[in-house]
Amino acid sequence: MKILVINCGSSSFKYQVLDMNGEKLLCSGLVERIGQEQSDLAHKKYLAPGQSDEAAKYQAQEKFPTHTEALQAVAKLFTDPEWGVVKNLTEIQAIGHRMVHGGERFTRACVIDAAVAQQIIDLSPLAPLHNPANLQGYEVAKKVLPHAPSVAVFDTEFHSTLAPAAFRYPLPEKFYAEDGVRRYGFHGTSHKYVSRRAAEFLQKPLEKINMITCHLGNGSSLAAVRGGKCVDTTMGLTPLPGLVMGTRCGDIDPAISYFLSANKGLSPKEIDAIFNKQSGFMGLCGKSDLRDIHAARQSGDARCQLAFDVFCHVLRRQIGALWAVLGQVDALVFTAGIGENDTFTRADGLAGLEPWGVRVDPALNAVRSGEPRYISPAGSKVAVLVVPTNEELEIARTTQQVLQGKQF
Amino acid sequence: MKILVINCGSSSFKYQVLDMNGEKLLCSGLVERIGQEQSDLAHKKYLAPGQSDEAAKYQAQEKFPTHTEALQAVAKLFTDPEWGVVKNLTEIQAIGHRMVHGGERFTRACVIDAAVAQQIIDLSPLAPLHNPANLQGYEVAKKVLPHAPSVAVFDTEFHSTLAPAAFRYPLPEKFYAEDGVRRYGFHGTSHKYVSRRAAEFLQKPLEKINMITCHLGNGSSLAAVRGGKCVDTTMGLTPLPGLVMGTRCGDIDPAISYFLSANKGLSPKEIDAIFNKQSGFMGLCGKSDLRDIHAARQSGDARCQLAFDVFCHVLRRQIGALWAVLGQVDALVFTAGIGENDTFTRADGLAGLEPWGVRVDPALNAVRSGEPRYISPAGSKVAVLVVPTNEELEIARTTQQVLQGKQF
Repeated sequence: MKILVINCGSSSFKYQVLDMNGEKLLCSGLVERIGQEQSDLAHKKYLAPGQSDEAAKYQAQEKFPTHTEALQAVAKLFTDPEWGVVKNLTEIQAIGHRMVHGGERFTRACVIDAAVAQQIIDLSPLAPLHNPANLQGYEVAKKVLPHAPSVAVFDTEFHSTLAPAAFRYPLPEKFYAEDGVRRYGFHGTSHKYVSRRAAEFLQKPLEKINMITCHLGNGSSLAAVRGGKCVDTTMGLTPLPGLVMGTRCGDIDPAISYFLSANKGLSPKEIDAIFNKQSGFMGLCGKSDLRDIHAARQSGDARCQLAFDVFCHVLRRQIGALWAVLGQVDALVFTAGIGENDTFTRADGLAGLEPWGVRVDPALNAVRSGEPRYISPAGSKVAVLVVPTNEELEIARTTQQVLQGKQF
Repeated sequence: MKILVINCGSSSFKYQVLDMNGEKLLCSGLVERIGQEQSDLAHKKYLAPGQSDEAAKYQAQEKFPTHTEALQAVAKLFTDPEWGVVKNLTEIQAIGHRMVHGGERFTRACVIDAAVAQQIIDLSPLAPLHNPANLQGYEVAKKVLPHAPSVAVFDTEFHSTLAPAAFRYPLPEKFYAEDGVRRYGFHGTSHKYVSRRAAEFLQKPLEKINMITCHLGNGSSLAAVRGGKCVDTTMGLTPLPGLVMGTRCGDIDPAISYFLSANKGLSPKEIDAIFNKQSGFMGLCGKSDLRDIHAARQSGDARCQLAFDVFCHVLRRQIGALWAVLGQVDALVFTAGIGENDTFTRADGLAGLEPWGVRVDPALNAVRSGEPRYISPAGSKVAVLVVPTNEELEIARTTQQVLQGKQF
């Protein structure tokens, strides 16, 4: 079964086509600036799927007035003699869509039909930027690949196993009952993928492992996973709280909103934009990319050093919070852009946790690889791992399971 | 030296007179509803100071138009043949005032003069309800006991040792530089007192102990204390964040403010009032007193059970967060109304932390006493203690130290 995976934003989308026979990535790509004067299309065809990442790259600049024209252009590439991966579009048997917010309605992935689409739209107050954009991918796919069923895979799904003690906020009950104000959690597809991959790598049954998965990227969150089930996470109603992120503040005193409105005359909307787009690393040091921050702090930039110190302090705090929820932890698993690549974060973020049996071997930590690996020394009480995430593969797997009626 | 300690609110104040020779409590009292049609004065004279809590109780209902008339009535009691504790008011040589917010300006207690008073007023944006009210105690004491110097003892002081990595929020730098937006922490006088008392009780040098002090009362906060110095705490810019409290929400997704303004049409001020006065236990189950909640959940009230479960979940999370900051913890210390008296909180709140060496002995936990005591079984890796707090004594001690130039 060949599956198209789409992650659709308001003016862009990413895609992959995977052959689930062997879970091979056939092609991937990105269309940006849809609706603007000039849109960008970047497409990669993998030359030896499943064996190497070697790819032929196609790039084009065209004007795509809407997502429809963009996906039409991409679909044309799929069957192109040079850049294509199928003879006929009908070979693409299903489409998996990343959906950010499933609310309490969607605790599992499901086939999208008109009713489901409406329910996803109805959840938009919980994810006003994401849900309508994500759903646009479905509307467009229905036109361009009308033969293929679409499946919605929710970023919140993996966290739907949280108990009420973990998901309820100490706020007036009506906000939960009427408006769905509770902790949902995000990056669920990634946390699910890496928790399973980590168990395979450790060669232990998932059911017998407690782990904290650390998805550290543009957005960052942790998940406490007990026997394969998520029991707590650091994001909440929205993807704002928890860790320090590129431009998001993570956990702060919730009274700061009122302080800023009372003392700075800022509107709720302005404050929301500040918390989401001008805070985190950006707020502390004016840079949002941790690689730039490392370069600057190594040449003595005190603000960048502070930004990294705050990030590590909060990371340790949040690891501690989830550790207390799990009681006992067998593995800490790092993934996503920062988690997979940033040796400083893994070393300095875990410094001081030795009393819990957490150790990082500097030589292992320095290894760069696309494969799951230990960074704790042999014989450590807690396995510290790097496990590259693969959200698209997880979405494709889930899509296949849903269509085969095998989802569990 | 006899010292009057005043904790002044906007329409009430609490007071104690202590004889620092032996640290004996001579009298205590409370005036409420100042400025209303009828004010209440309750005064206790301790019959055997330092030996028992036996006290003679005086109660009166009078009209006190302002704090001045109220303190005048109290001062009259101080020299009353039956209810008094001194022959002449000049025997009261100093006054210690509880001040909530010292900002970054006041990292130590100090004698209050006109300049200091102005600086405390200047800090009012950080504590609009508390600082002006607290300072009113000074203005009134100056009139009624003009001979006695006043000392300000700040609730934030003990947390002034936090490092920037612990106190800076990942928000635009200007909010820190221009408006002082950072983590301050509160209940400092209590955390300081119990951390020192715990070290005495353990008969270990304060410098060699890492502990988490758990002040759980009407308001609740934790402090991570390394060698006597506070290195992190759960409250922040304001006393809202951290643990679940009677009517305060503690940590929540900071984006919930915007969600409520966008979806419920609530103003920033209304939202602030909801977070501070209608949340916490009250929000989850309609009751704010944990004793009522225990009674109700024991007769099967599911909402009260949920409120307690959320409280314990968050307590564990926050203990874990501070534990990660300390790395290694020798003692967990419970204090204040809930911390000193609630066996359920100490048992259920710590359940699951056994892998860290935390154990609670049910028989020891059931003991009721006004003395410091172990609740962990002998030989436990982590000493779990109950240490009754005494903020007034700590304020009196600090006041004396400041006046004797001995403050360290």
